[in-house]
Amino acid sequence: MSYFREHRSRFLEELKAFLRIPSISASAEHSRDIERAAEFVATELRQAGLKAVQVISGPGHPLVYGEWLEAPGKPVLLFYGHYDVQPPEPLEEWISPPFEPEIRGENLYARGAADDKGLLMILIKALEGVMAVRGRLPVNVRFLVEGEEESGGEHLAEFVASQADGLKAHAAVICDTEMFAPELPTLCVGLRGILYGELRVQGAAQDLHSGVYGGAVPNPLMALAEILCELKDRDGRLQIPGYLDRVRPPAPEELAAWSRLPFDERRYLEQEVRAKELTGEPGYSLLERLWARPTLEVHGIRGGFTGEGAKTVIPAKAVAKLSSRLVADQDPQECAQLLEQAIRKATPRGVTAEFHLLHAAAPSLTDPSHPLVQAAARALEEVFGNPAVYVRSGGSIPVVSLFDRYLRIPSVMMGFGLPDDNLHAPNEKLYLPNFYRGIEAVARYLDLAAEVV
Amino acid sequence: MSYFREHRSRFLEELKAFLRIPSISASAEHSRDIERAAEFVATELRQAGLKAVQVISGPGHPLVYGEWLEAPGKPVLLFYGHYDVQPPEPLEEWISPPFEPEIRGENLYARGAADDKGLLMILIKALEGVMAVRGRLPVNVRFLVEGEEESGGEHLAEFVASQADGLKAHAAVICDTEMFAPELPTLCVGLRGILYGELRVQGAAQDLHSGVYGGAVPNPLMALAEILCELKDRDGRLQIPGYLDRVRPPAPEELAAWSRLPFDERRYLEQEVRAKELTGEPGYSLLERLWARPTLEVHGIRGGFTGEGAKTVIPAKAVAKLSSRLVADQDPQECAQLLEQAIRKATPRGVTAEFHLLHAAAPSLTDPSHPLVQAAARALEEVFGNPAVYVRSGGSIPVVSLFDRYLRIPSVMMGFGLPDDNLHAPNEKLYLPNFYRGIEAVARYLDLAAEVV
Repeated sequence: MSYFREHRSRFLEELKAFLRIPSISASAEHSRDIERAAEFVATELRQAGLKAVQVISGPGHPLVYGEWLEAPGKPVLLFYGHYDVQPPEPLEEWISPPFEPEIRGENLYARGAADDKGLLMILIKALEGVMAVRGRLPVNVRFLVEGEEESGGEHLAEFVASQADGLKAHAAVICDTEMFAPELPTLCVGLRGILYGELRVQGAAQDLHSGVYGGAVPNPLMALAEILCELKDRDGRLQIPGYLDRVRPPAPEELAAWSRLPFDERRYLEQEVRAKELTGEPGYSLLERLWARPTLEVHGIRGGFTGEGAKTVIPAKAVAKLSSRLVADQDPQECAQLLEQAIRKATPRGVTAEFHLLHAAAPSLTDPSHPLVQAAARALEEVFGNPAVYVRSGGSIPVVSLFDRYLRIPSVMMGFGLPDDNLHAPNEKLYLPNFYRGIEAVARYLDLAAEVV
Repeated sequence: MSYFREHRSRFLEELKAFLRIPSISASAEHSRDIERAAEFVATELRQAGLKAVQVISGPGHPLVYGEWLEAPGKPVLLFYGHYDVQPPEPLEEWISPPFEPEIRGENLYARGAADDKGLLMILIKALEGVMAVRGRLPVNVRFLVEGEEESGGEHLAEFVASQADGLKAHAAVICDTEMFAPELPTLCVGLRGILYGELRVQGAAQDLHSGVYGGAVPNPLMALAEILCELKDRDGRLQIPGYLDRVRPPAPEELAAWSRLPFDERRYLEQEVRAKELTGEPGYSLLERLWARPTLEVHGIRGGFTGEGAKTVIPAKAVAKLSSRLVADQDPQECAQLLEQAIRKATPRGVTAEFHLLHAAAPSLTDPSHPLVQAAARALEEVFGNPAVYVRSGGSIPVVSLFDRYLRIPSVMMGFGLPDDNLHAPNEKLYLPNFYRGIEAVARYLDLAAEVV
């Protein structure tokens, strides 16, 4: 559609305006920016021609909702995106400031460029174009945008659970995943779930001097290390009793398809990860470890002294930020209990340890043969010129399990990000050719989905 | 000596004036106060009758030196103290302001009251009294006062190393330790040394998302935990090959003497430490673990995300602040090498780990039968009315190892502080009866030391 080509520079400017809003959901001081980002999305949805657009305030960050339901007998698609972003730290590693979008080569650099503002704008601009040219859409659309995706907020879950009737749809359409490789259109049909929480350890009632007390009193930082080492062995095998019992191995055909994906493990190590070597659970291929095996990772440890110089403190308490990725058919609540039990068993003498779950999401699997997934595969192939591949993602998109649980609909996950987009890291970027092709692919998808009865 | 009783109120006023100077060595904004404190000490030394008193400027905070060397054939004693103090924070926990000395009951409250201004004034006032009454001292005295004790400055080490000839003495006299219990005069005859450094671990070249990469890449925080757990087992036993080889067990008589010290382990746990239980290396008594066994403690771990909420980052790098207390006859350089080797061996796949030593101090032991130590024991017994006990300290006083290394002299450590003096904490205090008795004990010590050939 020529409309899309004609409006590219405006689409880009609007995306840049969106990216300039530092809508960091984890930080209370950015609450005004969160509101501005929600308003921005609402304006964009109205401009696209959606009806009943509203910013839904309530507890937590506002949701934005809009709909267009004037295609009777046609499928209802529930579009989803999020307007919030990860914190940008460490700031000193950004080549250009995170909230001052900058184009270098064919990439647009900014926090949120790929996750998820850029991909959310793909969905909006596809709708806008079709509406602008035809005055209507070939399918029915509901559009739900949230602002707590990066901070594990629970308010979307409450909303979906309580408004399930008003969100009725045949499938969700989510652009928050990535292409397996450049030029390789990709549908994601599996996501890992997650448990995220804090492991809090308390030793003495107050900080103590390590000269005067060292050798007689517990050290909560050391206790944390000991607990972590009991939960996972040095080879990367989880040691949480019962935790792996419900893990469903991928079907042999799926494993075979993964092995045919163009994946260069050496390049991945040397150019993407850039560590000494890859690690992880023995006996599983890399893609199995990333997509079909649970993990346990520590994200940060607080407590004691980490400044310049030397302070000889044995801290009274220490906290580790932990997460575990879950795979089908692990149950988050059950896994949280098993993890807590294992922590209790692993806690050394002298300290108390408590695990506080901050949020949880179930793993999900989508049937690749679903007609609304197949329609997406055809749209992608037409626009990108290559057959779509079916992959899973190691990440978690909590909304997918919400839609699964409360609306009982599959999620069609078209990814337009690239593996080197630096999500959640400094120098996040969006490959701009994918921004423009993504818009066209989603527009084409609307037509192909309309043919699904 | 009646002089001491007659001048008590002046001594107290002079100490209060000293305490009003906020000579916080760690804080650049107090450099003027550091100078004022050094000048104050110089004036006090002159008033006491010492000769050649000078404030020695140079790199770092000034040293103050004075001497009286007119007792030929008599021992030379090197008195040491420091005029700098710890930062007073947290201010809100002080009952009276830290630099406005206030007497409540028999205690004088102020930052530095015990550590070390009050105890330094004990030494000065003892010399002043003897000089005032007799016009001379029974022994030769050098007096060296520094201003970087609380900030780990290296300038005293440089001075002692380069001026060893001008500091020649038979023993050092240091008042920077505490009494084991009220009314129990105490000589400290052993200090632990220390290695303090950073263990720096590098995984991938950049922070990675734990969903996208979790299961395939190394996590430096987990690697730190794994290294720490290899260096020390869950029971508290160090697992660093060769590290304990030179540890000299206390003599049976010393252990027997420790077991007779009035020490209530239950009170220590419940009122002082306030943890679930005491911990440490099995097979050693509490005082052995504190005084005669090396330790390994982690003081803080930097890396990843420790803020509010949930960030799913696998950090590229992580740093642990580590220290190890050393005991006789461990050698800091050798121990640093053994620690580095053990870290190398304990480093898991996928990461590099390096230990960066920030500073080191040797452990020290003083022979309790040394005649200048025995003289101190007799002086203390005469003034306090109880026999002196010999203890060690788990902490490190770097100057003691400096005097040992460069001057080859023992340090006589007479402690007049009390265990509840709140050193380095809010509401630091000095028990005033010990201030007055300390002055008399040091004065008596001069006479008894003079009898030592």
